[in-house]
Amino acid sequence: MLIIDVINDFKFEEAPLLLKTFARITDKIKDLKIRCKEKGIPVIYVNDNFGQWQSDKQKLVEYCSKQAGSHLVKTLKPEDDDYFVVKPKHSGFFSTPLSSLLNELGVETLILCGVAGNICVLFTANDAYMRDYSLYTPSDCIASNIDEDNERALLLMEKTLSATTSPSEELDLSAIIGKTKENKQRTIY
Amino acid sequence: MLIIDVINDFKFEEAPLLLKTFARITDKIKDLKIRCKEKGIPVIYVNDNFGQWQSDKQKLVEYCSKQAGSHLVKTLKPEDDDYFVVKPKHSGFFSTPLSSLLNELGVETLILCGVAGNICVLFTANDAYMRDYSLYTPSDCIASNIDEDNERALLLMEKTLSATTSPSEELDLSAIIGKTKENKQRTIY
Amino acid sequence: MLIIDVINDFKFEEAPLLLKTFARITDKIKDLKIRCKEKGIPVIYVNDNFGQWQSDKQKLVEYCSKQAGSHLVKTLKPEDDDYFVVKPKHSGFFSTPLSSLLNELGVETLILCGVAGNICVLFTANDAYMRDYSLYTPSDCIASNIDEDNERALLLMEKTLSATTSPSEELDLSAIIGKTKENKQRTIY
Amino acid sequence: MLIIDVINDFKFEEAPLLLKTFARITDKIKDLKIRCKEKGIPVIYVNDNFGQWQSDKQKLVEYCSKQAGSHLVKTLKPEDDDYFVVKPKHSGFFSTPLSSLLNELGVETLILCGVAGNICVLFTANDAYMRDYSLYTPSDCIASNIDEDNERALLLMEKTLSATTSPSEELDLSAIIGKTKENKQRTIY
Repeated sequence: MLIIDVINDFKFEEAPLLLKTFARITDKIKDLKIRCKEKGIPVIYVNDNFGQWQSDKQKLVEYCSKQAGSHLVKTLKPEDDDYFVVKPKHSGFFSTPLSSLLNELGVETLILCGVAGNICVLFTANDAYMRDYSLYTPSDCIASNIDEDNERALLLMEKTLSATTSPSEELDLSAIIGKTKENKQRTIY
Repeated sequence: MLIIDVINDFKFEEAPLLLKTFARITDKIKDLKIRCKEKGIPVIYVNDNFGQWQSDKQKLVEYCSKQAGSHLVKTLKPEDDDYFVVKPKHSGFFSTPLSSLLNELGVETLILCGVAGNICVLFTANDAYMRDYSLYTPSDCIASNIDEDNERALLLMEKTLSATTSPSEELDLSAIIGKTKENKQRTIY
Repeated sequence: MLIIDVINDFKFEEAPLLLKTFARITDKIKDLKIRCKEKGIPVIYVNDNFGQWQSDKQKLVEYCSKQAGSHLVKTLKPEDDDYFVVKPKHSGFFSTPLSSLLNELGVETLILCGVAGNICVLFTANDAYMRDYSLYTPSDCIASNIDEDNERALLLMEKTLSATTSPSEELDLSAIIGKTKENKQRTIY
Repeated sequence: MLIIDVINDFKFEEAPLLLKTFARITDKIKDLKIRCKEKGIPVIYVNDNFGQWQSDKQKLVEYCSKQAGSHLVKTLKPEDDDYFVVKPKHSGFFSTPLSSLLNELGVETLILCGVAGNICVLFTANDAYMRDYSLYTPSDCIASNIDEDNERALLLMEKTLSATTSPSEELDLSAIIGKTKENKQRTIY
């Protein structure tokens, strides 16, 4: 489960818009996170560095916990055993070790949550699709500044990336875990 | 089997040096290529584009077949069923589809041949090692401008990259093919 | 100017749909290509390899010129001085030398044309935006299987990627060339 | 200035060897770091994550400060204003935001220090060279398990990567800063 850009300082022009739509999904993300951890599904924060390059998660969380969306940030505060990947650009795969980490964990299916649905979540979804991951993008765990843009992004992920967009409560996590691909035959040359 | 930079125009200052050392290994590479193809091991040319960006293999081969090392280039001319990947920089993995191709072919072990041993072959070997490939770098199929530099590069590949550097004739291709890794368990989340 | 996936064998389930929408834009792309070349703007084909890994442009063009969309493919046949980059996946930037080539050419603005608008063009646009290119995606030079999907992709490129989507005839190429960014100051450490 | 893998737990078979050679260079690295910061040259730690994926610099430093090489680690402890990039593999450029960071900082020349000279430093140097950076690899700030391997790596960086390997005290930092490349002409298309 990837949680995208929820540790956020909400210091950009349209932040008030996003704070409203984000407020509607924080509890949903938190619930889904709890369910994932119960099932042993790894939780990975994929988060903007907000111009900080110190790979210092503690400082970043502390800083964002004092800004506009503090109560939302606190709700989704990463726990000690959550993975945390810092990204410099929109996609979680661009210039980050995310691919290496997913490979190490043996992950082949991703559940994407977070903000903004039409930018960082969408870009990460595109890159994930191109790298052959199956995608779940629960519609109630993804928000954008403007609802219409969010809808459009969800529709695009569903149609183009074959993502499942049903709400998080309908996600059958056990089925996801059980659905192991037949092991790819790999020859050595 | 990766064959590196053998389709070459030999138009650089130290080319006369490389033409001499390259002449000693062309037949060895050709023999190894024949043996690989008999065993069904894919042969992939990984080649500089010499400033040409047309992905036009035929034009590239034709051009190089008229330059200083023409007889050597002709000896190693790619056949229609050989793969051919154009690289813009030293490493065969940098800004090329090589990773995608190897992944598609299910390759986990690489045999590296070609020139120059201390630059493009070494850089490609480093990148391959970092991507977890097992390496064979047969000492009689790799040449550099200066023999001493070639020795140093081979030693480094052996010591640092755990590459096998024994000469091509000692390569037991059947054993390589047979040595399938136990299938990695991959869970889906 | 990037021309995406127009050298195509149209051998996929929904190809008949795309052939219809593609037929409406081929002449527009051709006209724009001619105008670009007159202005000295480099034209780069970014094309799927259709499972072929020989970097053999001539063979690829020949093959596609004998398939369903032959007349359209012939209209947009690459000329000898056009660049040609083979891509293994949806985005033109993924596992290809496109970045290196654009860097070498000093390009900072891209005009994107081709098919399919909601997949390969969109993915390439996303990756271009993330790499800080300014984007032109002329609405009459981009087609998808379904017009509605094409509209949605164009809207997304306009809103999220700040792309200009006005039709090709309104593109003022001279202005584009003239609009040089102030030279970035770069210190050396 | 890149400082490679000095925040280390020294928990690998040959660590006792490296602890000895590393002890000889820690003060040299520290001195050079002080001089760089005085000149306003950015200092970037590029460090293995030792299996931890939490991007939690504080935890990593704390952990390594309690292991075998604690006094050396403490000597080179990152300060709050030092950059810190976590790398999953040998090269500092592989699956990390290092390129993005260097680009943002406008850096074109790199000073490489740290361990191990024949592995992570060398791999990072190769990747830096391929990305057109000029290189300084001061011989007294780079150590490997075995001195002979270190020598071989330094020689290779000097000969193949055109790196300057003179000792840190001979490094004229002012000259490095002053040596601005003529601004690359970049046209926009």
